[in-house]
Amino acid sequence: MTLKGKTIFLGIDGGGSKCKAIVADSSDNGMVLGHGLAGAANPSQYFDQALESIVASAKAAMVDAGLADIPLEDVVAGVGLAGVNLPSVFDSVQQWQHPFKKMFLTTDLHIACLGAHGGADGAVMIIGTGSCGYLNNSNKGLIYGAHGFPFGDKGSGAWVGLEALKAVLLAQDGLGPETQLTQSVSEILGENNLGLVVKMIGAKPSQYAKLAPAVVEAAEKGDAVALSIVIEGAEYLSAVANKLLNGNPERFSLLGGLSHKMINWFDKDVVKHIAEPMAQPEMGAIYFAKKSMLDEVVCK
Amino acid sequence: MTLKGKTIFLGIDGGGSKCKAIVADSSDNGMVLGHGLAGAANPSQYFDQALESIVASAKAAMVDAGLADIPLEDVVAGVGLAGVNLPSVFDSVQQWQHPFKKMFLTTDLHIACLGAHGGADGAVMIIGTGSCGYLNNSNKGLIYGAHGFPFGDKGSGAWVGLEALKAVLLAQDGLGPETQLTQSVSEILGENNLGLVVKMIGAKPSQYAKLAPAVVEAAEKGDAVALSIVIEGAEYLSAVANKLLNGNPERFSLLGGLSHKMINWFDKDVVKHIAEPMAQPEMGAIYFAKKSMLDEVVCK
Repeated sequence: MTLKGKTIFLGIDGGGSKCKAIVADSSDNGMVLGHGLAGAANPSQYFDQALESIVASAKAAMVDAGLADIPLEDVVAGVGLAGVNLPSVFDSVQQWQHPFKKMFLTTDLHIACLGAHGGADGAVMIIGTGSCGYLNNSNKGLIYGAHGFPFGDKGSGAWVGLEALKAVLLAQDGLGPETQLTQSVSEILGENNLGLVVKMIGAKPSQYAKLAPAVVEAAEKGDAVALSIVIEGAEYLSAVANKLLNGNPERFSLLGGLSHKMINWFDKDVVKHIAEPMAQPEMGAIYFAKKSMLDEVVCK
Repeated sequence: MTLKGKTIFLGIDGGGSKCKAIVADSSDNGMVLGHGLAGAANPSQYFDQALESIVASAKAAMVDAGLADIPLEDVVAGVGLAGVNLPSVFDSVQQWQHPFKKMFLTTDLHIACLGAHGGADGAVMIIGTGSCGYLNNSNKGLIYGAHGFPFGDKGSGAWVGLEALKAVLLAQDGLGPETQLTQSVSEILGENNLGLVVKMIGAKPSQYAKLAPAVVEAAEKGDAVALSIVIEGAEYLSAVANKLLNGNPERFSLLGGLSHKMINWFDKDVVKHIAEPMAQPEMGAIYFAKKSMLDEVVCK
């Protein structure tokens, strides 16, 4: 294999918990040359950290690809980030003196959707640390949710974790039912009673999301409080899914770490429309960068 | 009036929105010599700011009392703060190299309760930026709630504001009912659509609490969404009140900027037990400082 004369592409997917990067070349076979991973990259929450995570994941992916001798200034990056659905956040990142030859910026939703459908149009719902729905039609995206924590992201890991902590604190005051969830949350956080409060003061969404798998597990075992939380979350997510399906997408996929769990409480009418995602969001970022490069050439 | 030979006391009440201070002397007539006001003083949220607000409010009160020439190191301070119900936060503030001759530290709940009942035992429920219940019995306090934002403080101004913002964002996505509340929230924040999200990223509880009066007003006019929010909040607060009343307090009072509004949706059985508070929390801080001084002398 030779990369001589080929453009090197980075596909970067930045979210509230981590930032993933892959390296590919300009050929259409979609072969991934290397992977990189770094910390949180949601510029609406922690702007400087997001930029650092993008660069760190990119460098790690180049090293993993055995391309450490190629500087980032020779590489074209497709970057999809959480938070840049907010125009002011998008503009701030766009003004960044990035280290790449070119940077094509879009939302994490857009690259997730492109990845899930092999570069084609479609719809996705992401249920991870945050939650949202996205309908893609010729690079024009329609977004549901994606408002962020604590006022949005219903049905997400962070939301499930927050609702669980609320319920545990109510139970401790004798103002809500005491269930197995109290012990589960205490074990995960390594605290109990007011120690839970101290531990979670100023907590990031990702810290709440760490509670979510235990809440879902408790719900699966019939824990009444856990069940009421996941059912409320799933009702919202089903409503988002129905909005997306009303747009008649060619394909519809679920993404995110909690999606395979929350699907168990979805409307059956929604479930029958769900198709497996074809590739990861970071591959969607590669599709996006390549397409943007071609469009740029044509427009010139 | 001469203050010669009399100990000067500061009574300080620090919460999530502001810090109030009053000056009094060692006589029992409860006459307030001066008032001071400063910014937020909840050390569990913003530790350094809380200490700055305590000192700023104290200095302002001394100036207001015409006692600017008396240094704080000659003054005994009774200090009641939000957040110090958490033992680790209490210890951190206790270790502060404060500028006073002596500082007697307790919770904002304790001084509020002492103030409301003229220095005697009783129970209070505070409904302001945060929410909580407190039952005082010989300086031993039983606390309900007071867990802080966003996982606690149900029925408070911050909680009401957060729930309202959630509802407005759902409505904007067509996933919840659109009511007058959308316009009210947009007007207060001076933004609409995604502008609301941008404005409230990382918002403090006090910023959410600024939305609460409009939500309550909308509820009073029959706005369905606003009504469901305040009713859910009031149900929780009534449950807390019933817990307090089960402890047979001699008196029970409501405190906090939102209490006179939320009371309209309380259980009638709770309402009939409510007595007017006799004095402000900062006067409770004076009672606490004087009592603590006397106990210290006796114990020596």
